[in-house]
Amino acid sequence: MGNTDYDVYTSARVESGVHHRVAVPPPQPFFKSLKYSLKETFFPDDPLRQFKNQPPSRKLVLGMQYVFPFLEWAPRYSFQFFKADLIAGITIASLAIPQGISYAKLANLPPILGLYSSFVPPLIYAMMGSSRDLAVGTVAVASLLTASMLGKEVNPNENPKLYLHLAFTATFFAGVLQASLGLLRLGFIVDFLSHATIVGFMAGAATVVCLQQLKGILGLEHFTPSTDLVSVLRSVFTQTHEWRWESGVLGCCFLFFLLVTKYFSKKRPKFFWISAMAPLTSVILGSLLVYLTHAEKHGVQVIGQLKKGLNPPSAGDLVFVSPYMMTAIKTGMITGIIALAEGIAVGRSFAMFKNYHIDGNKEMIAIGMMNIAGSCTSCYLTTGPFSRSAVNFNAGCKTAVSNIVMAMAVMITLLFLTPLFHYTPLVVLSSIIIAAMLGLIDYDAAIHLWKVDKFDFIVCMGAYVGVVFGSVEIGLVIAVVISLLRVLLFVARPRTFVLGNIPNSMIYRNVDQYPNANSIPGIIILEIDAPIYFANASYLRERISRWIDEEEDKLKSSGETSLQYIILDMGAVGNIDTSGISMLEEVKKTTDRRGLKLVVANPGAEVMKKLNKSNFIENIGQEWIHLTVGEAVAACNFRLHSHKHNPAKDESEPWNNV
Amino acid sequence: MGNTDYDVYTSARVESGVHHRVAVPPPQPFFKSLKYSLKETFFPDDPLRQFKNQPPSRKLVLGMQYVFPFLEWAPRYSFQFFKADLIAGITIASLAIPQGISYAKLANLPPILGLYSSFVPPLIYAMMGSSRDLAVGTVAVASLLTASMLGKEVNPNENPKLYLHLAFTATFFAGVLQASLGLLRLGFIVDFLSHATIVGFMAGAATVVCLQQLKGILGLEHFTPSTDLVSVLRSVFTQTHEWRWESGVLGCCFLFFLLVTKYFSKKRPKFFWISAMAPLTSVILGSLLVYLTHAEKHGVQVIGQLKKGLNPPSAGDLVFVSPYMMTAIKTGMITGIIALAEGIAVGRSFAMFKNYHIDGNKEMIAIGMMNIAGSCTSCYLTTGPFSRSAVNFNAGCKTAVSNIVMAMAVMITLLFLTPLFHYTPLVVLSSIIIAAMLGLIDYDAAIHLWKVDKFDFIVCMGAYVGVVFGSVEIGLVIAVVISLLRVLLFVARPRTFVLGNIPNSMIYRNVDQYPNANSIPGIIILEIDAPIYFANASYLRERISRWIDEEEDKLKSSGETSLQYIILDMGAVGNIDTSGISMLEEVKKTTDRRGLKLVVANPGAEVMKKLNKSNFIENIGQEWIHLTVGEAVAACNFRLHSHKHNPAKDESEPWNNV
Repeated sequence: MGNTDYDVYTSARVESGVHHRVAVPPPQPFFKSLKYSLKETFFPDDPLRQFKNQPPSRKLVLGMQYVFPFLEWAPRYSFQFFKADLIAGITIASLAIPQGISYAKLANLPPILGLYSSFVPPLIYAMMGSSRDLAVGTVAVASLLTASMLGKEVNPNENPKLYLHLAFTATFFAGVLQASLGLLRLGFIVDFLSHATIVGFMAGAATVVCLQQLKGILGLEHFTPSTDLVSVLRSVFTQTHEWRWESGVLGCCFLFFLLVTKYFSKKRPKFFWISAMAPLTSVILGSLLVYLTHAEKHGVQVIGQLKKGLNPPSAGDLVFVSPYMMTAIKTGMITGIIALAEGIAVGRSFAMFKNYHIDGNKEMIAIGMMNIAGSCTSCYLTTGPFSRSAVNFNAGCKTAVSNIVMAMAVMITLLFLTPLFHYTPLVVLSSIIIAAMLGLIDYDAAIHLWKVDKFDFIVCMGAYVGVVFGSVEIGLVIAVVISLLRVLLFVARPRTFVLGNIPNSMIYRNVDQYPNANSIPGIIILEIDAPIYFANASYLRERISRWIDEEEDKLKSSGETSLQYIILDMGAVGNIDTSGISMLEEVKKTTDRRGLKLVVANPGAEVMKKLNKSNFIENIGQEWIHLTVGEAVAACNFRLHSHKHNPAKDESEPWNNV
Repeated sequence: MGNTDYDVYTSARVESGVHHRVAVPPPQPFFKSLKYSLKETFFPDDPLRQFKNQPPSRKLVLGMQYVFPFLEWAPRYSFQFFKADLIAGITIASLAIPQGISYAKLANLPPILGLYSSFVPPLIYAMMGSSRDLAVGTVAVASLLTASMLGKEVNPNENPKLYLHLAFTATFFAGVLQASLGLLRLGFIVDFLSHATIVGFMAGAATVVCLQQLKGILGLEHFTPSTDLVSVLRSVFTQTHEWRWESGVLGCCFLFFLLVTKYFSKKRPKFFWISAMAPLTSVILGSLLVYLTHAEKHGVQVIGQLKKGLNPPSAGDLVFVSPYMMTAIKTGMITGIIALAEGIAVGRSFAMFKNYHIDGNKEMIAIGMMNIAGSCTSCYLTTGPFSRSAVNFNAGCKTAVSNIVMAMAVMITLLFLTPLFHYTPLVVLSSIIIAAMLGLIDYDAAIHLWKVDKFDFIVCMGAYVGVVFGSVEIGLVIAVVISLLRVLLFVARPRTFVLGNIPNSMIYRNVDQYPNANSIPGIIILEIDAPIYFANASYLRERISRWIDEEEDKLKSSGETSLQYIILDMGAVGNIDTSGISMLEEVKKTTDRRGLKLVVANPGAEVMKKLNKSNFIENIGQEWIHLTVGEAVAACNFRLHSHKHNPAKDESEPWNNV
């Protein structure tokens, strides 16, 4: 029998008879518990643990390494690492160049900005970032948002200089927001965008970006400024006579080529570099095609002249004048948060996979500094896009040096190779964007959500529909609101259920989960599955009343003994506030009036503290608070039977006799 | 030994050896569980329970009684009840008349509106309301808010007609909001204003109203339109030469009289009617004083002419034209919600006290209809103020007929007695307001909050400071935001703690609460005290890692056996979403890498469902999921010892031998 190594006899005697006193936790000074709460809220991963018990010089070194992580891995850098990082860096550079130019055009910015943004920000990240796999670059969603939000205020065609300066200013404010969140350890805010939300939002944004590319693919001149599905389709199908078949055919061919290479690389992961090289190949092929056929004279739009040379400084171009500054701030905040959420998620995923640890808040500071520095060197918003980091990872990167290699490759391009892009048709850029966006539509994740948690699926769909049929901002607001509503609804409507006795044991579990669990005559046992807060106190009070009503109805119709005891299992009640304590007092009054006795089982530490301070324990009586449901049932049963046998017996504590 | 009536031997054998299989709850069709969730959210008190199993004619009667509760108690009305209600009605009428006039002046509306608002709305409430003790009337806080919010848009002195019509429109929209919340069963929204919030907000509003009365008491002509403390004090003390000693002395005398009667009634509850009659007495005395001394010719401001006659219709005066309509809507929404919160709280408190049940959502419909009808009959916002309902209760009301009696008394006043108020000095109204407001500052409640739950105290103080130093709207926003933040923070930073074995038992509890609980060598047991959601999944993952780190540090320094098993007690995890399941999968990967085995104990019904659907159970292995922590520890201990004795032994399930 003995799988345990303690006295079975002792266990039996103890389980059935001894009444354990439920302790009020030893009181802690207010500031000590405040300090503990603050630490849990802001420093959950205790990043300063390594500083303990170290000499001051070592502390200084550790401090410098904390702020600039490259000081930690740089001394241990080997040639092996460099080989791997070189290959990875060149691979992601081949992706960075065409994607950078494409996304800059998506943002209605000069294409050269895409190259600038793949030069300075990766260098900053390599110094300050903690992730070994994150590859820095611009993202389509943020580019689209920049175009749509700034475009409302300033038309990029009529006033390109102001538009450009506003983009830099928005990037600056985005960086300031990101760094502040990191410094103030408010990183947990990003956690409030649930995975379901992000799946839906990203899929919606990707759909919207693909729809926007119809302009480039079909070679249309006039296009709706709105991003939603209905406006775009109307704009496309009312101009069928304007469609240029040349652009259309060219675009579809390149798109087909890109999708085929992507599919092939997915099936044979060893050949990941094929899909990574495909965009650059398309650019080269497209340029050649246009150059040889002089297609740019037949109306095929091309990139045109790209300035040679490195990033010009732009710190002086930042706009701090109303009303434009407010638009820039708003754009910067929204794009900054979205970019941050993606960058942190990417960093965490790869760290989890490769089993190293990154500090989310420190990463935020790195990404923030990257954007602040970028805004002063003619870059716009960058982060760590998932697709590029995945390529980096597949290519076998070892440290952030892959970002440095990519930056060097981009530098060489900026200094010498920009004339090569003169003849690149815009339709190739559109195809590159569409191919990248189709990868963002994660329908596998959506199906998984439907299977596991339908509410999460609703959240996902809500975000998707909001973005596709409204606008990106509306979709984001809907996504965040639905996420928060879910949290609030959970707190406002916690689950309660009746417990029953698992046969032949002293274990009491949910009768829905264990249909063979028996109820005890004369006793109803309820479990409350959430903290009791102002938000749910009224609901719980009414629900408890209703449970009692329903149980008494059942007993009346079946003719059994009526209820005499109600046991509340508080094991899952993590915390209670003053409204919750009022609720318990009201429940006691109600049950007293109905002739029931209220019994409390298994209150936790926090709950006992509050019950003690509010004198509820004296109100209900210490003898009615039990350590486990089993002990509570035992005590109630004893009283029930002693009343049956001896109604006049005194209601003294039965355990004095044990 | 036997306090229980089951086989001790069986219990021992079962507790120590048998492995209970943790069941996945039987699957429910999606729509059945959706229906259940919707019912819990919107109909927690199951108001239609009484309709079950009734013939159709009875159902019709019950339906009519549900919508118009007076059809239920009217047939059983007796003369005894009428006697009690008559006394109560006259008592609250004596309060309603002076308070109504005072609060209308507070709202910058014609004083007669205060009397109108105590005539029609109580009649509507008597027909549709469920509370037997609620007394209908205007409230100071809503009057102040009306003045401050409408006053920003329209100056009541320059444009009194438009201001009046806007007040009616705001009342109309408030009523529409209230009735809609009730019809849509969204009443739980009001629950989100916690008691702590309301205490702080009401105290702040009361302070602000008292400060505003300094204008009337000191007889100042020019006064700041702002409501915050600094502006008011500056306005008062820069005009010390303008103070009128006559008003000041008169006001202080009446205030002293009112406060003394209030204190006396509190000490001798039998004489409650003394403090109830005091305001009307002050009005009469003040009018006499002014009439006899002709003080109105010496600069003492008086009410002046009050129109005779009942409420004129005002449905045609409602303003549905921008931009004024937007202001009216905004004012209506905010005042409507505050008034609703107070009315529902009052209704609930007295129902709890007198042990009858009221349906919160039905009450909201009644209050909403009352305000809609009021807006069409020259009334402004009314609800059930606590002070007046308390007087009603103390005066021994039996049903809502007390409201009808009050309305009749007000009708008589409107038809015949309005000339009596011609000479009432405004300073008496200010004293009445100040005396009423001092009752709203509930410092006992604030001290109780400090003692029991310091966070609630911070919420209370935050609301108070926001109202007194900012404005009423700012204070309300701060109060709601802090309340919601508390809910979100609780979800984002749930408590986790280490469990230990209570000596001589199979009970495992928090080592902080039970310092004598022992840890088990080689095993760490963690309890997570909240549902695992996207909002806290990352935090929990890092916290679990940190618990393992801290425990291993402790073991290293004390030289004991290192950890081999980590048991997660999921008894308090009410629910889990897809982010939570990802978190568990990541924890499993991390613990696998560290050479620990992850064991799950006591997962609830919802959690098991989701773990099953996401294949986590197959991932972790059914044998690693246990019904109780005790069984999990037993299983781990068995393996630990069998490994010690026989390292080569096969890892088969030990319970096949039992």
